[in-house]
Amino acid sequence: MKLENYIRDIQGFPKEGILFKDITPLLNDADATKECLKILAESLKGQKINKVVGAESRGFLFGMLLAQELNAGFVPVRKPNKLPYETISASYDLEYGTDTLEIHKDAIQKGDKVLIHDDVLATGGTAKAVCELVEKLGGEIVQLNFLMELTFLNGRDKLNGYDIFAAVTY
Amino acid sequence: MKLENYIRDIQGFPKEGILFKDITPLLNDADATKECLKILAESLKGQKINKVVGAESRGFLFGMLLAQELNAGFVPVRKPNKLPYETISASYDLEYGTDTLEIHKDAIQKGDKVLIHDDVLATGGTAKAVCELVEKLGGEIVQLNFLMELTFLNGRDKLNGYDIFAAVTY
Repeated sequence: MKLENYIRDIQGFPKEGILFKDITPLLNDADATKECLKILAESLKGQKINKVVGAESRGFLFGMLLAQELNAGFVPVRKPNKLPYETISASYDLEYGTDTLEIHKDAIQKGDKVLIHDDVLATGGTAKAVCELVEKLGGEIVQLNFLMELTFLNGRDKLNGYDIFAAVTY
Repeated sequence: MKLENYIRDIQGFPKEGILFKDITPLLNDADATKECLKILAESLKGQKINKVVGAESRGFLFGMLLAQELNAGFVPVRKPNKLPYETISASYDLEYGTDTLEIHKDAIQKGDKVLIHDDVLATGGTAKAVCELVEKLGGEIVQLNFLMELTFLNGRDKLNGYDIFAAVTY
């Protein structure tokens, strides 16, 4: 099974000139989802994970599946003012301006072995901010994994020193 | 195991006078998550499900787990302009104004047996809009299930005729 066959090109979304990779056909197929989960989990080669951290909102999808597969807790990272308890935050640059992400202060314990998951590695800004949040709380980042990586955006350059895996690369 | 022990009260979120039920401690615990998934899946008593529909963004969490558990596809319902392909939409009333949800036109096929999942059944507005979207596309709604139900908000009154289940009720 080729996962690429379940990822659809959408021309001009979210704005003109952008070719969007739509994962909803993959989500819509139970077998393709299972295969993708297997590939992501096997990339960890049996390394112990306590917590899986996923960024709102597409990082929640495989983030939850990975957490259960690895028998780990799931930790949501969200946009400002969405998490109800005490949080810490990290900001990252966008094309114009900045954006901020938050994590609950009690979501990660010192020494937790953490997998960070998101659907896409693009410029790496989101992933870098999530790393910062996890490390501020004392978590040890074992791997960052992604359903797909848009290599032409050079996201890995922002994530030096981390183990990175993507199930599909473009 | 009592799931209630993993749901935390947050006073005054998102605004004064509201007692928010925070599920992040449950997500953070792999065993509590597994138990909650089991309770939600068993409520279906073996009924066949093809598609699980989850509303952005907390409906994605157990929505994906339920889809894999039931060997069904997962369908995200999202806020406007988040889904990249052709969509249909449904609006629902808020305390002040209205809100709109979208679904991909090709996400449900006529005759699909559909489970709708969300984290909370409150006033029922979101759930009603999701039912409308699924039925517009020809899906047959087998059940609506929720991690928790806030019974004092009478959400069931908006959802007459549907089979409804909640793992935890308040």
